[in-house]
Amino acid sequence: MRESASTASSVASTPSGEPRLNRRQAAKVRTRQKVLDAARNLFAERGYEPATIRDIAKGAGMSTGAVFANFQDKAELFEAVLTEDMAGLAETMQKGAGDGSTRDRLVNALSAGYHGSIDQLPLFQAIVARSWFQPVAAETRQRAATRSLTDVIAGILRQGVAAGELNQDADVPLLTELTWDAYLSNYRRAAYDGWTVDQLARHIGRQVDTLLAGVATK
Amino acid sequence: MRESASTASSVASTPSGEPRLNRRQAAKVRTRQKVLDAARNLFAERGYEPATIRDIAKGAGMSTGAVFANFQDKAELFEAVLTEDMAGLAETMQKGAGDGSTRDRLVNALSAGYHGSIDQLPLFQAIVARSWFQPVAAETRQRAATRSLTDVIAGILRQGVAAGELNQDADVPLLTELTWDAYLSNYRRAAYDGWTVDQLARHIGRQVDTLLAGVATK
Repeated sequence: MRESASTASSVASTPSGEPRLNRRQAAKVRTRQKVLDAARNLFAERGYEPATIRDIAKGAGMSTGAVFANFQDKAELFEAVLTEDMAGLAETMQKGAGDGSTRDRLVNALSAGYHGSIDQLPLFQAIVARSWFQPVAAETRQRAATRSLTDVIAGILRQGVAAGELNQDADVPLLTELTWDAYLSNYRRAAYDGWTVDQLARHIGRQVDTLLAGVATK
Repeated sequence: MRESASTASSVASTPSGEPRLNRRQAAKVRTRQKVLDAARNLFAERGYEPATIRDIAKGAGMSTGAVFANFQDKAELFEAVLTEDMAGLAETMQKGAGDGSTRDRLVNALSAGYHGSIDQLPLFQAIVARSWFQPVAAETRQRAATRSLTDVIAGILRQGVAAGELNQDADVPLLTELTWDAYLSNYRRAAYDGWTVDQLARHIGRQVDTLLAGVATK
């Protein structure tokens, strides 16, 4: 996960040709981003439940009213942080894949994921914990956010099939799911056993080897 | 998970030669079990956070003081339910394995696990959610409780190696971990997608096929 890099100026002069924001709109975007960053810090520090809107507002240097002007409640704020961070993490993974064999690209991508998220481990723990006990609507939105990450895994596997490194009949969705479950589960080793990024990377490497053993063509 | 079958009389006349409980001790065991059963029902109904000691006491037909005489706090009560249920579920899985190939025994055991726990799905969700955000000491105790389940998986895999159905160099701990991660993750399909036990069983079957594909000897 990352500290957001977006600022009002980068939004105002978007290179993709979206309409420029006027001053008032830009200020609104800035405020929203300030709230998001303060919320991210607090969720990462304490987890979901103990983080209060009051303390998030304090961290952003604004009133609780200003927070509520941007987000309906803590749950919506949490989801906005989640969505932003998952998108950033997916980019990190995609870049981290690099070149090489399917196995290496997959392990490199996932290792980059650990590298890019470990400093906000409690936030990640809060996200997974919440994913087990939330309203269906929240789950649907969270899946959409997580989708960007699993898409990176699936993309690498599909390229492996296309390149003939994996069997043509490899079940990419099932392998993606198993890889993702293993990836996620390993965070608990970091949380409770103090595993470093290197240890996580080595472990997911062995797990990927096991998962691909049945579908590798050589 | 199960409704506990233990009663004061079965404890008092333990066949394993443990000392018989006197009347007062037996009453204490009965009370403790009543609290545990009421707590299990409430955790299964509401999840961990919203369940209160007050309502657990009410469900058990006793005062909150009587609950606290047996358990220090809600966390200890939750762990006691968890330990009892995991032990019961491990037994269910072990019996469910039956005869047949390693693959079939593993899938049968895990399917029996789903069958024996699906009626208390919210309790299971609460257990997993909590496992992501709890003190290390609680995590250590929870791992000990979960160990009985992963031991069933590991046992079946080891027998498969011994029988020559799996490669001699199969990494049993790693396969156990991947199988367990997949097994656990599937509960989310039941929680959010309404999957039935049959759907869960079919899915874990495909996952086990993928996991064993690289280590099966034929």
